Amino acid sequence: MPPTTRWAVGLEYDGTAYAGWQTQETAPSIQSACERAFSAVADHPVALTCAGRTDAGVHAIAQVAHFDTLAARTARSWVFGANTHLAADMSALWAVAVPERFHARYSALWRTYRYVILSRSTRPAIDHRRVCWIHAPLDAERMAAAAAALIGEHDFSAFRAAECQSRTPIRRVESIDVRRVGAYVTIEIRANAYLHHMVRNIAGVLIQIGSGEAAVGWAKEVLEGRDRRHGGVTAPPSGLYLVGVSYPAEYGLPDGAASGAGRPSIMIQT
Amino acid sequence: MPPTTRWAVGLEYDGTAYAGWQTQETAPSIQSACERAFSAVADHPVALTCAGRTDAGVHAIAQVAHFDTLAARTARSWVFGANTHLAADMSALWAVAVPERFHARYSALWRTYRYVILSRSTRPAIDHRRVCWIHAPLDAERMAAAAAALIGEHDFSAFRAAECQSRTPIRRVESIDVRRVGAYVTIEIRANAYLHHMVRNIAGVLIQIGSGEAAVGWAKEVLEGRDRRHGGVTAPPSGLYLVGVSYPAEYGLPDGAASGAGRPSIMIQT
Repeated sequence: MPPTTRWAVGLEYDGTAYAGWQTQETAPSIQSACERAFSAVADHPVALTCAGRTDAGVHAIAQVAHFDTLAARTARSWVFGANTHLAADMSALWAVAVPERFHARYSALWRTYRYVILSRSTRPAIDHRRVCWIHAPLDAERMAAAAAALIGEHDFSAFRAAECQSRTPIRRVESIDVRRVGAYVTIEIRANAYLHHMVRNIAGVLIQIGSGEAAVGWAKEVLEGRDRRHGGVTAPPSGLYLVGVSYPAEYGLPDGAASGAGRPSIMIQT
Repeated sequence: MPPTTRWAVGLEYDGTAYAGWQTQETAPSIQSACERAFSAVADHPVALTCAGRTDAGVHAIAQVAHFDTLAARTARSWVFGANTHLAADMSALWAVAVPERFHARYSALWRTYRYVILSRSTRPAIDHRRVCWIHAPLDAERMAAAAAALIGEHDFSAFRAAECQSRTPIRRVESIDVRRVGAYVTIEIRANAYLHHMVRNIAGVLIQIGSGEAAVGWAKEVLEGRDRRHGGVTAPPSGLYLVGVSYPAEYGLPDGAASGAGRPSIMIQT
């Protein structure tokens, strides 16, 4: 048997047409499509494990996954080879050979998601399916003030979907950055990990605060209540992007969250 | 007969799925879709005349069109009513009642187009069909230096498609602004009017200069040669956006080119 090599790969995708990362029997998934592409390059079936299993309709500009292969290929061959087998709404960005102890999910230190809201009276056409459209005016400063209460290590039960399978509701949120650029308001969250729907549930609460429907202090109240039933609506998946996963420097992976270079236009902001 | 009112409307659209602005017998067009939508609101057939007839696959964030109607409707009714009849890749942005002497095409003083290039080694996924992808590195400063030769009133025959029906090849280019933000290079051109494919042909020449395939002085040589056969390739429609049309201030129309507010993310740059 030839030796097995583990590869980490960076992936960008528009999640609109997919039932999410995870392979399902009845619907097309990001995982299935990527496994088909890398398997074609490897000439044998490969299985992908990702850093963050995005939901249906959620996008990624810096998903990271790993796979093991018997095939000897260059990084360039994996990237450009996979792209010849992927649909146009997915792109392999990079590939790096990693030691076997690397695990896309368990080695990750931080995951960064950005929630993108278009706040204007008329609906988007160009950014259709790529943003959450809110026709009410939003006060980004109120949203930022409210978000500050969520930073730190907390029990996020109030922001957790009923179907969440995590053993613990405790997560560590390193930062939440809310800003406005033109008609866009973005919420960027960096945390060690997330509960199911956590970012979209946080976005739902912050949108209600930003529109004036709820007080600035409501985010803190919801958090401390630890009861999903007292939270806000789950914001739609179209506004959500996985924008970065950080690993220990020893693995030498590109840091998707660190640089504006190569990012899609929706991510380029001052 | 009730009196006729002329309305000017602002339109945003993703041109990917359409054969261009102009109604065609065999393919879906922006014009047909918009006429159907405004006719439904008017309760009688209306005909739209636009400021700039975009080609197949070309986008607009600030197309302007006018129509005459017997119906009495508020600006809000036209905008929100039309949007209930438009597909998700089109959006009516505003409506303003204008005097009968207003003409979306003939009253326009300036039209501004932006050509958006993604310059990185791997293909786009999120921005698929919304940019022109160039895998070679581009030097935006070289492109800007080359573009300067095109500013002013010139015979643009070298940048004119064979099928162009304009009586004269003379156009007045007010400005060409080339800039890089992250992996994006944009070419924004403001001119009184354009020949067929003029922006895409200029983009084609500037891309060849930016990638180092041609000298900075080549743009001037091509212009002065007045021969399309000595120009570059026509850059693809996916990167092209109509971003603003300017009219005399007396009409009180929103100036799409003036403000970042409400613009899609691909247009928000520093």
